[in-house]
Amino acid sequence: MQVEFWYEFASTYSYPAAMRVEQAAKEAGVELRWRPFLLGPIFGAQGWNDSPFNIYPAKGTYMWRDMARLCEAQGLALQEPVRFPQNGLKAARLALLGQDETWGPEFTRRVYLANFAGQKDISDEAVLTGILSSLGLDAGALLVRSNEQANKDRLKAQTEEAIAKGIFGAPSFVVGGELFWGNDRLDAALDWAKR
Amino acid sequence: MQVEFWYEFASTYSYPAAMRVEQAAKEAGVELRWRPFLLGPIFGAQGWNDSPFNIYPAKGTYMWRDMARLCEAQGLALQEPVRFPQNGLKAARLALLGQDETWGPEFTRRVYLANFAGQKDISDEAVLTGILSSLGLDAGALLVRSNEQANKDRLKAQTEEAIAKGIFGAPSFVVGGELFWGNDRLDAALDWAKR
Repeated sequence: MQVEFWYEFASTYSYPAAMRVEQAAKEAGVELRWRPFLLGPIFGAQGWNDSPFNIYPAKGTYMWRDMARLCEAQGLALQEPVRFPQNGLKAARLALLGQDETWGPEFTRRVYLANFAGQKDISDEAVLTGILSSLGLDAGALLVRSNEQANKDRLKAQTEEAIAKGIFGAPSFVVGGELFWGNDRLDAALDWAKR
Repeated sequence: MQVEFWYEFASTYSYPAAMRVEQAAKEAGVELRWRPFLLGPIFGAQGWNDSPFNIYPAKGTYMWRDMARLCEAQGLALQEPVRFPQNGLKAARLALLGQDETWGPEFTRRVYLANFAGQKDISDEAVLTGILSSLGLDAGALLVRSNEQANKDRLKAQTEEAIAKGIFGAPSFVVGGELFWGNDRLDAALDWAKR
């Protein structure tokens, strides 16, 4: 059965998940679908206008230490982002264009690296252009398409779909009707898909 | 290095953790210390007067499904508690008396089973008396001691110690200066203790 990987570019724990999900799914023999969405509207509906890691400082302090341990174990660089959370709207619109294209996964990984390892502003079109160009893509054309109303609407619809599936945080994995929340549930989601 | 297991009787994910932590620590060759505390004052300081799983319904729906999967995988019974969250104050005062006694761990496990598998009211002294008696203990004497001011104060101090260690949820594991939050971090905590 297929695993859907639901991610938000501002989300810290989505970073280590994004960096290993493709290889893990391949090893498990499970088909993978990348699904970018936005957490902002979901958090907003819960009364949060900021990351819960900022609203609840003890949780935030813990999260950064936990991320450092996880990234070290996974051999991933981790640098304090230029701000937290970053605005991942433009990157998500681009990732949605790449969702079912061969370049989508690598674009996604490079945006996460820019955010959490490269101290780049991922809301800056120059940064996104650089990433697209590094993949040999026509950055200008993709940026134009990403900002067309149809694509904006599609990202809204995808976020509505996330809510309908019960998603309330990122990363999340969906296998049929089963929801798994968190980087630490990736293996459980793959195991479920193999049942 | 020693692992401290910080738990709250109302906490769902503390249940599967409590049921396996002793065996897991033994297999890892790591010394274990049981540390009951209260989440109520910590949640209250964050502006929550209820479990976040009740305040945020999508998170609550997910948690119960996740718990069902986890308990099934661990061979643990799970029944909807008589209420959620239950008041674990009296049970925590008793567990504190048993913290460094041989009966403490098994008392703790039986309270969790009563809450999450047995549909018992763990704030009911008759239920707690039954558990203590089933362990061959003098339930009456322990209940009296648990309600003495010195023991009440000790539980408050233990909760203050949890806050000072950065704890904001349960279960949590503390290894030296390192904090690990969640049932799914038990193995990481034990690995850290072995370093």
